[in-house]
Parts: sequence; structure tokens; C-alpha cells
Amino acid sequence: MEIPATQQYAIGIDIGGTNTVYGLVDRRGHISYRGATSTKKHEKIEDYLEELYESLMPTIEQAGGVEYIKGIGIGAPNGNFYTGSIEYAPNLQWKGVIRLVDMVKAKFGLPAALTNDANAAAVGEMTYGAARGMKEFIMITLGTGVGSGIVVNGQLVYGHDGFAGELGHNIIIPGGRKHWATGFEGSLEAYASATGVRLTALEMLEKNPETPSIMRNYTPDELDSRLVYDCAIQGDELAVEVYNYTGKILGMALANFVMFSSPQSIILFGGLTKAGDLIFKPTKDAMEENLLPIFRNKVAIIPSELKEADAAILGASALVWELP
Amino acid sequence: MEIPATQQYAIGIDIGGTNTVYGLVDRRGHISYRGATSTKKHEKIEDYLEELYESLMPTIEQAGGVEYIKGIGIGAPNGNFYTGSIEYAPNLQWKGVIRLVDMVKAKFGLPAALTNDANAAAVGEMTYGAARGMKEFIMITLGTGVGSGIVVNGQLVYGHDGFAGELGHNIIIPGGRKHWATGFEGSLEAYASATGVRLTALEMLEKNPETPSIMRNYTPDELDSRLVYDCAIQGDELAVEVYNYTGKILGMALANFVMFSSPQSIILFGGLTKAGDLIFKPTKDAMEENLLPIFRNKVAIIPSELKEADAAILGASALVWELP
Repeated sequence: MEIPATQQYAIGIDIGGTNTVYGLVDRRGHISYRGATSTKKHEKIEDYLEELYESLMPTIEQAGGVEYIKGIGIGAPNGNFYTGSIEYAPNLQWKGVIRLVDMVKAKFGLPAALTNDANAAAVGEMTYGAARGMKEFIMITLGTGVGSGIVVNGQLVYGHDGFAGELGHNIIIPGGRKHWATGFEGSLEAYASATGVRLTALEMLEKNPETPSIMRNYTPDELDSRLVYDCAIQGDELAVEVYNYTGKILGMALANFVMFSSPQSIILFGGLTKAGDLIFKPTKDAMEENLLPIFRNKVAIIPSELKEADAAILGASALVWELP
Repeated sequence: MEIPATQQYAIGIDIGGTNTVYGLVDRRGHISYRGATSTKKHEKIEDYLEELYESLMPTIEQAGGVEYIKGIGIGAPNGNFYTGSIEYAPNLQWKGVIRLVDMVKAKFGLPAALTNDANAAAVGEMTYGAARGMKEFIMITLGTGVGSGIVVNGQLVYGHDGFAGELGHNIIIPGGRKHWATGFEGSLEAYASATGVRLTALEMLEKNPETPSIMRNYTPDELDSRLVYDCAIQGDELAVEVYNYTGKILGMALANFVMFSSPQSIILFGGLTKAGDLIFKPTKDAMEENLLPIFRNKVAIIPSELKEADAAILGASALVWELP
């Protein structure tokens, strides 16, 4: 029996370093079932998949059975679209190459696709969010780290090996701040991530001992990006300056990206974007300043239109609608 | 009468700021007729096209007539593939928007396509040169300026507006050397072009007054990138250092580009590449150093396989074989 496309569902699974979230999603991005588990709970990937299977099967049956499910989309760190494997993910306990797509196909008897979380976010935005109908855009996720998904000609850019789009690791300030994990000096992620914002705040407090700031009410250990945000929206001068500085570097990076693929828009997603104009304005200003005239005032920087709580599941599920 | 594809020819026209070269090219990249004129000779674009027409028509007739010509490909500064127009090219005397494809179509009665010279070079390399069969690569032209053409999924990246691939204007050293034309500080072109190499040499001579160098035999006005090359191949320490420095910056930029589109290879073309290992080695070293481990030792940096004298015509002509 052929199920009409509009009645099909997709399963989205987002594998984070700490948590896994998953759900059943329809064509319009409505999530009718949600589940979550700890990614760290199972030492063996087989046990992990067994838990997902047992959690998902009742809802699949409720939806009418596997024939109503078009497939399973998975977002995971170092997820490779071409090979369907998670390859040497530093933050997962499953080491080496995990042939996840093959395992999921065998377990569920459904087609499956895998990519990294930022790529999945880009496809999610194209399917259900701010990038509907756009053929050229760049998605930047500003969270604990900085991820990216690039769409050219209506298709995600995977590169020759499936690993394209690691813009967080572009060097923006050579010899600049040392990245805590990669050891790179001056990469975008060292500044435009939650950790980066925290480090910028600590640096500014130290360099401007005379400037009063509510941020001084907290110990360096307490001060995180959320507190910087809280202080900035109260008008704290130094906290606002943290955002200006972050935006300046992010905007410079975005200008470089624009002169690469000339996207119609750049979509920003993640914790940092909650600061609204505090981060969007300096970012936009710096981007325009660093663009050749032919690119100026053409590229919109827009916030994601997916709810943060849903975005991971939606992004992963969106991979399914791209399946042949 | 349908002409077999193997018997078809393409016309390639490369419009440079100073000179225009053009020719008749077969499917294998053999140029059977060449012409050249001064781009500056004609104040009116119509007169310029008339000269090209009169020069090309006899050879078109010789080839069997227009039905043996599949079309006309044109490489030009600020040439826009989507609109078929040259748009506000700062180095051409034809100002504003020149609807070149329409004019060429009307004049010759043949299909035509236009893009900028670096994009044309990338298509040329894919059709006749080092990128045959490659679906993911980046072409970087290192000449008077630094140009680029990016191929993703077997197709040139044009972006939403037709202007993608201006990697020479990426900021690599924020606050670095001021670009003589754009005013940008620290863009790739300020270092990795012929002018950039000359400026680096002058800077190094000034900063190291004690270090002996054959380059000191020339006045600052005489010293150009060709002389730096001549001195470097004679083993001149400072001249070699100029290439090391240039390669270091170029390699850092290439690492950023690799983490964007993850190409199979990067093809370098133009005057600077004549220095061979003097430039390729420091470039490759710096690129690898600035790549995430997942990208290391995967991307070949290779020289163009098109003869420099032919490359412009070949690149422009290659656009024709991509026509529908």
C-alpha cells in the first residue's frame, strides 16, 4: 500500500555529547511524539539503539506502522552523510567509526540518513524554518561551540568527504585566543561560542579594572554566557561591550563566508542569538564593513525560526524528506 | 542539420583590463584560431564587438559556419553569469551595467555565457585541465590580483547574485597590510598577489638591513615579483623568505577555505605558481597546520594544467560546453 506523502512521518534523532532527543515529525514540522535519553548511559551502541527502538516502536505502531514512516534522520557529532558513519567523535564514548546508518536500517527496517548537527539544523531551517524556499544560505549555530551548515544551489554542501562546513574552526584572528580543545589560535569558535563570550567577559573585566560592572558581583567560576547576557540587558557597559566585541569578530568572519558562497541570507541559531540586537547589530555592522561593495546591503542576517527546544529533532527529521 | 557534438567548436573570449584574447576551441581544448586586441581601444562596446566579429567571422566560416559553433563563452571582470552582464567593473572603460550576453547573442546569432575570469578558469580546469573528473575543488588564481572559482557538486558556485567566489578579498590578517584598491586591511590579495609579493620583499629588505640580498641591487621601483622570483631561485635568503611568508598566509587562507567546502583539491594558477616548491611547500605546510585533524592530508594543492598563454581562452570557451 502506497501511503500519500502528506500522511507520512519522519523520525528525527539528535545525538548530543550529553543528551539524545528524538521524535516523530510530520511534513509541516509538527512533532507528535518526543523522547529523550542520556547519550552516555549505554557503553555499547547496540544497547543505546535498543532503548531508542523500544521507545519509538509504540509510537510508530500508533502512527499506523512502519509503512507510515518515510525514514529516520540522525544528527550527530562527526556524522558523515556519505558513509553513514559517526567517525572519531571526540565527545562520544563510542570510539572509532560507528556504522550508524547501517545499524539503524537493520534495527528499524527503515531508510536512514546521518549528518552532523549543524548540517541537520540547516536542512531543518530549509524545510520548516527561516530558510524555506531559499537556495543559497549559511546556517551558523552559536552554542557551546560554533557549527555551520552551508546550502548552495538548494543542496547542503558536504564536500568530497562529507565533512564540509566546519566554519567555527576558521582562523579569524591569527595568533589570537587559544582554543581550549583544538589548540588553534584565533578560531571563530574561541570567540563566538558560549565559552568564548565568557572568556571575553573575563578578559574585559581584568583589562578595565576601573570600569564598574555588575559582572564583578560574580566569581570567575560563576560568570557564564547567560550571566553576561543578563548583565547586558540591564545595560551594563562592559557586558554590552562583550557583545560588541563578539559581534565584531563574528561579522568579520561572516564577511569572509559571504565572499565565498554569496548567500541570500545567514541564519543564526543558538544561545547567543537570544541577545537579539545586542549581538545582531554589531555583527551586521562588522560584516558590511568587511564586504566588497558588490556584496553590501544584500545579505540578511536573520534568527532561526525553529524553537530551540524543537530544533534538534526537526533538523534531524528534515534529512528524511531529502531521501530519494 | 545536426552537427555531431565531437565536431563542434566553442569560441572563448577573455576580456582583461588591458588586453582581450579570443579563440576557437574544440572539445579537447585544442585552440585552432587565436586573436587579440586592446580592451581599451574602443570607447564604445559596440565598436569593440564589431572588431571581434570581423576578426572571428572568417574563422567561423572556415570551421563550416555558425552551425558548427556551439556558442560563445566570455570571461570578464565583474561578469555575472545570471544576468549575462558586466556590472560596474572598476577596471573597464565601459561603465555601469553592460548587457554583454544579449549583445553578443544578437551580433553573432549564437548562444553565449559570461562569468568572471577566475570562474572561467575553474571551468576550464574542469573541462581540459587538472580538475577533469573532479566534483569538488577550488581554483585560486595568483596573478596581479587573487581570484577564485569554487566548484561544489560538479557545479560552479555562483551564489544568489552571481558574484560568489571573491576569496582574494577575505580578511586573513585583521588590521594587516592595507590593500591599495579596496582599502581593506589584511585581505589575502594584499599578500598573495604579484603586488603583495613585491610589498613583502620591500618590507623585508627594510626590516632586515643587515641581511645581504641580491634584491638590494635594484631600486624599489625596479623590484617586482618576477625579480623576487629570480633572486629566490638563486638561493637569496631574503627572497626565499618572501615566499615562505607569502605561503604561510596563503596556506592559512586555504585552510579556512577547506573547512568551508572540503574540496578534493585546490588548484593554483598564475605567475606566483612558477616559483614551484618555493611557494607550494610553505603553502601546503601552513594549510595542514591550520586544519582540523579530520581534514589533514586529504587535500592536494596542485598547479594548473593549462598553459598560461592558453588558459584565458580555454576557460572562457569551457563555459560553452556547460550551456544547455
